[in-house]
Amino acid sequence: MITVDEARARLLQLVTRGPVEKVPVAQAAGRVLGADVTATRDQPPFAASSMDGYAVHSDEVERHAMFKIIGEAAAGKRFSGSVQPGQAVRIFTGAPMPAGADFVVIQEDVSRKGDVITITETPGTKSNVRPAGVDFTVGTKLSAPRLLMPADIALLAAMNIAQVPVTRKPVVALIATGDELVMPGEDPGPEQIIASNTFGLRAMLQADGAEVRMLPIARDTEASLRTAFGLAAGADLVVTVGGASVGDHDLVAPVAEALGLERSFYKIRMRPGKPLMAGRMGDAAMVGLPGNPVSALVCGHLFLRPMVRRMLGLDPGPPPPKNAALAAPIGGNGAREHYMRAHVQDGRITIFDNQDSSLLSVLAASNALVVRPPDDPARAAGDMVSYLAI
Amino acid sequence: MITVDEARARLLQLVTRGPVEKVPVAQAAGRVLGADVTATRDQPPFAASSMDGYAVHSDEVERHAMFKIIGEAAAGKRFSGSVQPGQAVRIFTGAPMPAGADFVVIQEDVSRKGDVITITETPGTKSNVRPAGVDFTVGTKLSAPRLLMPADIALLAAMNIAQVPVTRKPVVALIATGDELVMPGEDPGPEQIIASNTFGLRAMLQADGAEVRMLPIARDTEASLRTAFGLAAGADLVVTVGGASVGDHDLVAPVAEALGLERSFYKIRMRPGKPLMAGRMGDAAMVGLPGNPVSALVCGHLFLRPMVRRMLGLDPGPPPPKNAALAAPIGGNGAREHYMRAHVQDGRITIFDNQDSSLLSVLAASNALVVRPPDDPARAAGDMVSYLAI
Repeated sequence: MITVDEARARLLQLVTRGPVEKVPVAQAAGRVLGADVTATRDQPPFAASSMDGYAVHSDEVERHAMFKIIGEAAAGKRFSGSVQPGQAVRIFTGAPMPAGADFVVIQEDVSRKGDVITITETPGTKSNVRPAGVDFTVGTKLSAPRLLMPADIALLAAMNIAQVPVTRKPVVALIATGDELVMPGEDPGPEQIIASNTFGLRAMLQADGAEVRMLPIARDTEASLRTAFGLAAGADLVVTVGGASVGDHDLVAPVAEALGLERSFYKIRMRPGKPLMAGRMGDAAMVGLPGNPVSALVCGHLFLRPMVRRMLGLDPGPPPPKNAALAAPIGGNGAREHYMRAHVQDGRITIFDNQDSSLLSVLAASNALVVRPPDDPARAAGDMVSYLAI
Repeated sequence: MITVDEARARLLQLVTRGPVEKVPVAQAAGRVLGADVTATRDQPPFAASSMDGYAVHSDEVERHAMFKIIGEAAAGKRFSGSVQPGQAVRIFTGAPMPAGADFVVIQEDVSRKGDVITITETPGTKSNVRPAGVDFTVGTKLSAPRLLMPADIALLAAMNIAQVPVTRKPVVALIATGDELVMPGEDPGPEQIIASNTFGLRAMLQADGAEVRMLPIARDTEASLRTAFGLAAGADLVVTVGGASVGDHDLVAPVAEALGLERSFYKIRMRPGKPLMAGRMGDAAMVGLPGNPVSALVCGHLFLRPMVRRMLGLDPGPPPPKNAALAAPIGGNGAREHYMRAHVQDGRITIFDNQDSSLLSVLAASNALVVRPPDDPARAAGDMVSYLAI
């Protein structure tokens, strides 16, 4: 058995960053910039007024100074003439500054009679002019990789980058395995349960930017597993859930090996999630997750999400653990790193009593996994522990 | 002018929680549970083995005890008989416990010869049996409202809630206004710039769960604005960007009022974002945002996101501010609450020098807004300040 860190390192070696595709800027939010982009224009493209007021030459700006209004400049409508001494142009926010003017007296500091204005207040030194290119200029770069946030989308739009190069979404195929499973909405028999792990994993990995293909449930037969693996063709990452242990009905490993799996490792020194299997299978990475729901979803957080992030070109993470004070004492840990379901609020963390790896209700009530190192001794209430936010 | 908190309170009064619709569980991730749901089954539906091993009666479990194997139970395949004294059933993880058995000896603790097993290790007291209903039982409730996370999706699937009641996505119509604007991908004239604010706002509000309609750019004419407002019909929230000030070309307020806007307020004592206008307009809430990109997007964070959350039935927020130490001294603040673009890392926060509200490049480089109260005095490096993560 290997450690969690070693397992993650080996899993990350199984995947590489995907190719770059172009998408419209309106669809680029939440995607990862796949190549550097550079502005092909200046913003603003001209010196522009930042206020509503009167454009004049700064040399003439003083209280009681009078100007004749010779025209108007609005956003999108430049004043085509030139401002001479004693002249002003009525100007609005965002409008290009007219030639000959370098100062905007705000309208609140002026009295106007017909075509003449008088400065009535002592103007400040602020010119109320935005220089051309103050936001960005031709060649200003936005560097890849970068998870594109709302402000980035606005910036790309302003740069007129209508088609944005982004890393292709990695394709993850999910295969639930087990004779006992039926799909939500079906009427389960008395010995059946509803497939749930793949639904949770799908939500998790889609939110991280993967394209998730949910394949039909594979039964505990070689033929059914072969069908499912066949349907996974073209995926970057094939994930099975269940059937990866060593029980007589655990056929994932033998079938995957018959189909060419080069196993990287099997079993991790952790709870939950010990019987995890991984390798390369043709052009895809393959991960066999344990079938208990909490095991599968915790392994999703710890391993699949970093793999998706690596395929997107992002720092794979996981983010560094945070710290909180235990709300109640906790016994010593065993030999495996333990990721305990917990709820953290206002810096205090409560570890749930029942850590059985089948309990989705407990996982759904959790917002943290307390990370207990191997052989961590008993801890008292108030002791600080590390946790991962989930 | 009113304060930011008062503005937010008034804006939240303009919207209400939307109706509930049902969506397939596979599409419910990131949606908000709109009504309580209750399980209609027990999980597990039967006492189940949590390990691979042999099901026996606990009274007989001791080192060197021998058992005759009378059958097998696998996940989805119950052993139909009953286990008598001296008998065992081969059992696999997740399988229903056979009648007469209440203990699973794990396979590692047993030696097997033909149909007979002998317990070779001293078994622990752990039965390795999951009681029926240990995860949830008929009637276990998941309470609304609740933003549905991956583990919730798995839990809903396990409960066989194939159709999930969620709050309808609020419909937000975005109208960029201005004669100077062209869409990304167009070839702007020398006095034109690219519409960018609505692209950033769309990304922001979609991520929060809104359905965003991007309407055609409205020009600075009454007719064009009327057309745009007409296209916004049916939206829960209509947002204009630009044209809401009091310049001669700022027609949003008069046109909206002609169309029935009941104004709630105009102007907020804040930087950036002072000239914000809001009210009710027919069946919709209406917000007129200022046109500077940073103003529009900061107002999106501070006001539109809470409105969307309120319409989804969630706590509108915003989340409580965090604290960080100033990396460099900062001068005193003026009379308006100031949301300064900043970057926080490892507890230290750097406020960008240029806080002009036109600078998308600065906003895109920011991950925080430092909140300066009105008349906040100058602060030294190392002083703690409040910020909102963005």
